[in-house]
Amino acid sequence: MNVLIVHAHPEAKSFTAALASLARQTLQAQGHQVQTSDLYAMQWNPVASAADFSERENSDYLVYALEQRLAVKNSSLAVDIRQELDKLLWADLLILNFPLYWFSVPAMLKGWIDRVLVSGICYGGKRFYDQGGLSGKKALVSLTLGGREHMFGDGAIHGPLQDMLRPLLRGTLAYVGFEVLAPFVAWHVPYISDEARGEFLRRYAERLQHLDDEQPLEFPKLAQFDEALKPIADVSPSSP
Amino acid sequence: MNVLIVHAHPEAKSFTAALASLARQTLQAQGHQVQTSDLYAMQWNPVASAADFSERENSDYLVYALEQRLAVKNSSLAVDIRQELDKLLWADLLILNFPLYWFSVPAMLKGWIDRVLVSGICYGGKRFYDQGGLSGKKALVSLTLGGREHMFGDGAIHGPLQDMLRPLLRGTLAYVGFEVLAPFVAWHVPYISDEARGEFLRRYAERLQHLDDEQPLEFPKLAQFDEALKPIADVSPSSP
Repeated sequence: MNVLIVHAHPEAKSFTAALASLARQTLQAQGHQVQTSDLYAMQWNPVASAADFSERENSDYLVYALEQRLAVKNSSLAVDIRQELDKLLWADLLILNFPLYWFSVPAMLKGWIDRVLVSGICYGGKRFYDQGGLSGKKALVSLTLGGREHMFGDGAIHGPLQDMLRPLLRGTLAYVGFEVLAPFVAWHVPYISDEARGEFLRRYAERLQHLDDEQPLEFPKLAQFDEALKPIADVSPSSP
Repeated sequence: MNVLIVHAHPEAKSFTAALASLARQTLQAQGHQVQTSDLYAMQWNPVASAADFSERENSDYLVYALEQRLAVKNSSLAVDIRQELDKLLWADLLILNFPLYWFSVPAMLKGWIDRVLVSGICYGGKRFYDQGGLSGKKALVSLTLGGREHMFGDGAIHGPLQDMLRPLLRGTLAYVGFEVLAPFVAWHVPYISDEARGEFLRRYAERLQHLDDEQPLEFPKLAQFDEALKPIADVSPSSP
């Protein structure tokens, strides 16, 4: 299996970085090929802009997704985007590894998503969700946060964590076709003992060794919707 | 009323930019003071990093939120952050104006959130949700997207738009204490007629003239939770 780890944390010695290293080592020890994009170390540019295209379909007015489609055809995507896109297309498994900032990814990682998941390859027209351009690949989100586990869930102060992660798990990863595994979550990380951190590492390594046995999360399938993307009554996701 | 519009779109002539201009003009015509942070025009730096602090509590190991708290006390926050923070504290109403990228804000705007909503002022300890540091202020999200309205809602292919916006509306704006108004949404923007765009502008101006009459969205209140932030049974949000 080919694995791409996209890691974004401003502290190279962070526990989040340790999770990325552990994933690389554990997966390599199983015989997988692993590449890591350490976005802070790479000084990744997270800003989607006109500079991302060496040629433009419309040089007077930027519609970012339309220019992505042209740039894919014309090989006029910025080099840094093309390099990441090649890694992404090579990978069978994508791991996004980050600290939760505002119940979401840090801007650095959001900018990887904004720029690398290009229209025309990763999605486009009716190619999304189970028909997405990256279908057949798996994705795993590994995150650290300051909050405690009891602050999340039904009736808890922040509600279920997966509801907060919806734009990432469903709106991004499932949208482009990934089979999305349940997130790996290390809770309350800045405040816990080394022992407790070690326990998270142990559990993560254990999970990584058995990813093949996991069932992905459930998301919409295009066959449940008609040509106008309206739900087909008898297979609607809200029906029993 | 003092109003801060934070606008992020890579095309200066975009319809999204027209929404920001309309908001400025409409609110000024009502006698309000308006400042606009046009993040692309400002070449805003969206990357949270050690460079955001001219002094460090721990120069060997970066815990971003902890350094924010110190930097607020010591006036050692980066100048670009301090300028935005001053505008934010001055404002009675914050408008976030952006195109929806991956069911979320563009990285440029995410980086404004990551860097400007500093711990120690905007939140900290038990100061969040209705007790957040920005309580008493209002926030409005104004967004454009490519999708059509029927793709969102219960049973629709993407589910309710507000569920996708949860980390922003609840996890960010409500978290720091804002009264969050219902988002203003311009659907299917790249594909519609000038007339249809004009209709969105007309509706937006109409809304902006009557924001005082609006009821904010409902979010958790700290009084519903105990000292450990566990729900108090009889006032839990999941009880009838």
